Amino acid sequence: MNFITFTEERLREFTFSVFKKIGCSNDHALLATDVLIRSDLRGIDSHGVARLSGYVRLWEKQRINATPTIRVVHETPTTATVDGDAGLGLVVAPFAMKIAIEKAEKYGSGWVSVKNSNHFGIAGYHALMAVEHDMIGISMTNASPLVAPTYANERLLGTNPMCYAFPAGKFPPLVVDMATAAAANGKLEIAQRANKRIPDGWVQDAAGNNSTDPNELKRGGSLLPLGSDKDHGSHKGYGLSATVDILSSVLSGANYGPWVPPFVSFLEPPTDPVGEGIGHFFGAMRVDGFRPAEDFKSHLDNWISRFKNAKTIDPEKKVIIPGEPEYAFEQERKVSGIPIIDVVVNDLNELADKLGISQL
Amino acid sequence: MNFITFTEERLREFTFSVFKKIGCSNDHALLATDVLIRSDLRGIDSHGVARLSGYVRLWEKQRINATPTIRVVHETPTTATVDGDAGLGLVVAPFAMKIAIEKAEKYGSGWVSVKNSNHFGIAGYHALMAVEHDMIGISMTNASPLVAPTYANERLLGTNPMCYAFPAGKFPPLVVDMATAAAANGKLEIAQRANKRIPDGWVQDAAGNNSTDPNELKRGGSLLPLGSDKDHGSHKGYGLSATVDILSSVLSGANYGPWVPPFVSFLEPPTDPVGEGIGHFFGAMRVDGFRPAEDFKSHLDNWISRFKNAKTIDPEKKVIIPGEPEYAFEQERKVSGIPIIDVVVNDLNELADKLGISQL
Repeated sequence: MNFITFTEERLREFTFSVFKKIGCSNDHALLATDVLIRSDLRGIDSHGVARLSGYVRLWEKQRINATPTIRVVHETPTTATVDGDAGLGLVVAPFAMKIAIEKAEKYGSGWVSVKNSNHFGIAGYHALMAVEHDMIGISMTNASPLVAPTYANERLLGTNPMCYAFPAGKFPPLVVDMATAAAANGKLEIAQRANKRIPDGWVQDAAGNNSTDPNELKRGGSLLPLGSDKDHGSHKGYGLSATVDILSSVLSGANYGPWVPPFVSFLEPPTDPVGEGIGHFFGAMRVDGFRPAEDFKSHLDNWISRFKNAKTIDPEKKVIIPGEPEYAFEQERKVSGIPIIDVVVNDLNELADKLGISQL
Repeated sequence: MNFITFTEERLREFTFSVFKKIGCSNDHALLATDVLIRSDLRGIDSHGVARLSGYVRLWEKQRINATPTIRVVHETPTTATVDGDAGLGLVVAPFAMKIAIEKAEKYGSGWVSVKNSNHFGIAGYHALMAVEHDMIGISMTNASPLVAPTYANERLLGTNPMCYAFPAGKFPPLVVDMATAAAANGKLEIAQRANKRIPDGWVQDAAGNNSTDPNELKRGGSLLPLGSDKDHGSHKGYGLSATVDILSSVLSGANYGPWVPPFVSFLEPPTDPVGEGIGHFFGAMRVDGFRPAEDFKSHLDNWISRFKNAKTIDPEKKVIIPGEPEYAFEQERKVSGIPIIDVVVNDLNELADKLGISQL
């Protein structure tokens, strides 16, 4: 595998030109670019520009609307439902999170469920929007079905991530940003490319047997929930994934469970939808709605210090604070640039040719 | 193991008399009784009357205040911090949840963080209070440190449960109520009594090695987070547990991480507390703050039907809807009574003798 390193600016310029070319407004193209590039900056390569051509293919199939009218369709002082008008999740999600933050400014907290949206990039981007306002940020989304609940032999849930972000004082924000599956599909793809086995407990085959073959998902197998099997708490991973699904979609009127439309354009959405598009859920709570923000931050700093300095099994492996590795990536890549794997560079250059814009 | 079956009424009467005897008001004794008995009714035997003598021992050590003045110490229209005045968590938690529900009635949502409390029983009880008002209920608590974060060789987190409860239409509420550890301590105790090994991935020994011996926790070992090891996502279980700890205690001003005081009276609390007592976190959101409640419920019914009827690996093992087994227990035990294991009956009768009240 070869990597080519680009500056953040060059990747932004390229990504912006793609979104402009498919008809996005300047504001939307800038915002969508910011979400994708932040993912690459934070080291979550699977959710950044690597997905750009996927979004374009969905737009070509008219499953993404490049010029959506995103609007609130139901609300109370602290809750709202947003209709994303089939827009890019990269644009719909920050719109919804902004409403949650505005409600929290006024009333202490704000909660927004979203329907009729698409893939929203990394959950952490949206939750971190709240942190900038000294709020706790929460973001979730459902996704197309790949995960079998405990005992099931069919895919009924997505890898449905949930994210909680907290402002600290001297430390970077603490960000828990996790798929509710034992392992996300990206890890299987890495093993496939390297022709390696995967750990027991990530997938089951089409007959429902545990497997260490990373290709099982392509052959009708399923990902497993966090916990892997009943003995190790897979019913908990299933329960968390169900929670994300319900808050994101049963609450907003989007599609849920096996009805969630696929991200990949070569698979058609179910013909019997139970809602509109995919769903997200966002929350913002003012820290000073509970105690002075400085008190919260100094205690969170103390929490972080204690955990960073925990006694470890292997002296070489320190306890990791959630969000710390991504923060370190971001500081480093802002300076040294963003390495993109050659297959993704080729894919982006083919996309450029197709759209008639300059290659990367 | 022998069980003796009691009527719900007899257990309530006994439990009420214990709480009265230690000085609780009528209202508090009734409420604390209701929380404990509901746990036994729902089949969560580890959190019901089995813990009654534990609460009394903490009261004897003056670590539980039987006559607390529970009060709001900080608030906005939709957020509040409650000081539990070292009261029974069984009383403090419903007080706090009631505030969350009242705020949600007015503004769409309500969020309450609690300090200076004690063990609150089952998380599901409190979350279900919101469901009765057609709200989504959320409850969490931290607990004394038993769990080692990924890579750590010390106990820094409790089994920190989180619960999300949703009102359905024709089905019982969907209740995700789960410890964020791979397995709770109660499961180890069952294996100890039966002299059986436990699955790999529940505990590590004092040196940090994975172990299948249920006695390791007594010998300085630790429970493992949901996910068990890094390969299977233990950093996610650790992140969820951290989230519970921060929302419950860093936000309210309670003790967090390794500073959380132990539930057992024979262990002394840390001498360098970072807050007051243990912490909880509660939330309530009106379903009709997002869409008409009937729409939500009929779609949740559809979700539940689809999952109940999922294709399974073993035709004998259906997919379980979160909260369904507990609901079935409750229906059955309300009629047939509650079986209590003999060691617990003996413990309760010793407690009765000590307090000078009638035996069970």
